[in-house]
Amino acid sequence: MKKKYFDDLKDGEHLHCRPVVINRDAIIDFGNKFDPQPFHIDENAARESLFGGLVASSLHTLSACTRVVVEAQGDVAILSGVGMHEAKMFNPVRPGDILYVKARWTDLNKSRSKPDRGFASIMCKVTNQRKEPVIEYGYRYLIACENFTMP
Amino acid sequence: MKKKYFDDLKDGEHLHCRPVVINRDAIIDFGNKFDPQPFHIDENAARESLFGGLVASSLHTLSACTRVVVEAQGDVAILSGVGMHEAKMFNPVRPGDILYVKARWTDLNKSRSKPDRGFASIMCKVTNQRKEPVIEYGYRYLIACENFTMP
Repeated sequence: MKKKYFDDLKDGEHLHCRPVVINRDAIIDFGNKFDPQPFHIDENAARESLFGGLVASSLHTLSACTRVVVEAQGDVAILSGVGMHEAKMFNPVRPGDILYVKARWTDLNKSRSKPDRGFASIMCKVTNQRKEPVIEYGYRYLIACENFTMP
Repeated sequence: MKKKYFDDLKDGEHLHCRPVVINRDAIIDFGNKFDPQPFHIDENAARESLFGGLVASSLHTLSACTRVVVEAQGDVAILSGVGMHEAKMFNPVRPGDILYVKARWTDLNKSRSKPDRGFASIMCKVTNQRKEPVIEYGYRYLIACENFTMP
């Protein structure tokens, strides 16, 4: 796979992400580790909740979608993540849901202080198998130009 | 533990979060599952990176800190998460780092359309054992009032 530098990225370019399936055990496991709200970890409590059943932590959804976005990036010369944009949640993710991530590069800005690197965002819109919106979010990365030299 | 409703929350009230330790195996495990950038999963690649060694995925840091924030919430009548605020990353998290989360309730707004519930944010500032800033982020929740009735 050819290494991609900041200069190779195109504003608006789509990343082709494989679908993501989030199953019951993964929801409970992530919830227990990182976000132990009753509706993420306890089937009975979840049934009594506004959701009427188990739903994934949004951090789990975001993380699971990040996996396929990173795979779709290919070998990009990412130096560091620098931030995450606001995330909006629309519909919950339930066990067995299939998620489709539409991701694209945007907001490409060469660094002013260090001309051998640039900043770029990936914005993501996630829908489920019923075509309902699930979550929108984005990352901001620092990326090396081809002439990058390690400080 | 007494159930806390939206009306019980106070703007500016702090949550007392226990420290978070992020170790090497957890960094690699999270990276492999959710954010397989070389500097999260491969010790050798990480050494050659701008970080000079393994660093945690920011999603991992955010998730691990969320765990202690949720514990510190106590039994709050959270109906749903509705969003996450922008996250800013300052310094990387390295194996063995100890993270301190300063979290507080803020932006309490009663729902206009449904007076039995309200919205509230938790804003978090995370520092490490060297008192360096690590990450700032926040969640937005929908929370039941005491007179909440299930629709």
